[in-house]
Amino acid sequence: MGIEIEKKFLVIAQPADLSRGVNICQGYLLNTPEKVVRVRIKGEKGVLTIKGLPVELVRPEYEYEIPVTDARQMLDRFCDGKLIEKCRHTCLHQSMTWVIDRFSGANQGLVVAEIELTAPDQPFSIPPWAGPEVTDDPRYLNANLIQNPYTLWQADK
Amino acid sequence: MGIEIEKKFLVIAQPADLSRGVNICQGYLLNTPEKVVRVRIKGEKGVLTIKGLPVELVRPEYEYEIPVTDARQMLDRFCDGKLIEKCRHTCLHQSMTWVIDRFSGANQGLVVAEIELTAPDQPFSIPPWAGPEVTDDPRYLNANLIQNPYTLWQADK
Repeated sequence: MGIEIEKKFLVIAQPADLSRGVNICQGYLLNTPEKVVRVRIKGEKGVLTIKGLPVELVRPEYEYEIPVTDARQMLDRFCDGKLIEKCRHTCLHQSMTWVIDRFSGANQGLVVAEIELTAPDQPFSIPPWAGPEVTDDPRYLNANLIQNPYTLWQADK
Repeated sequence: MGIEIEKKFLVIAQPADLSRGVNICQGYLLNTPEKVVRVRIKGEKGVLTIKGLPVELVRPEYEYEIPVTDARQMLDRFCDGKLIEKCRHTCLHQSMTWVIDRFSGANQGLVVAEIELTAPDQPFSIPPWAGPEVTDDPRYLNANLIQNPYTLWQADK
């Protein structure tokens, strides 16, 4: 279990000093506000994650490494072809680590950056490559990008 | 993944030579015909199991040992108090192993025995302590005993 205080921004310019990316493919066995069961392939690893509703900023989260072949089978069998694909980089800005997700597949074109804070009022500096904050915009939740991917919003414009 | 060919019978008399029992408490994060995500505490171990729909007798099943403290928390947080509690014994009959589940809690009074076969036509002997076969009666599925426990059917009689 961990405290999850995250701030999320769109990325509007190319950040410098990106780490080498790791490919992530994930899908959901269960995806409700109360409970999430997520299967992920991250690089060469399989990961199974169960999350509950946040209680006073602490979101119950249980994460287990599983064989990548199991993860592949579960993504193929249980996720109705609805998958999130992205390449994850990290980037240091003023000694704090930002996680940058560059989406592909149905969310091609979307690039978001997240920083994790240890307290809601922890100060942090917004990098020059960061655009609008979207922390509170539910469309940018991975769980929602599955159902309503970014390329569809763009097509609607 | 494994082939699952099981025969299930009610137990109507005390089997001899029961193994020492192990207590099982289990609940479901997800419980649909297509997908099951089950959390179980079996003795001192936590187990997370994901099952899919059987395809030609083979039911996809993925099982992982997890910390028992995680399993306890997930049963408490995610299962709405709906739990299956039972004590599991094994018993040899004519060189084949039967699994005997003696339920407690909301399913108190129910005792079932299961034998796993390796082929649908594999011969086996029905022990003298076994009563009616209930293999095809969905009420006896653990997933259904959660929603409609045995003591409620007895009360309806």
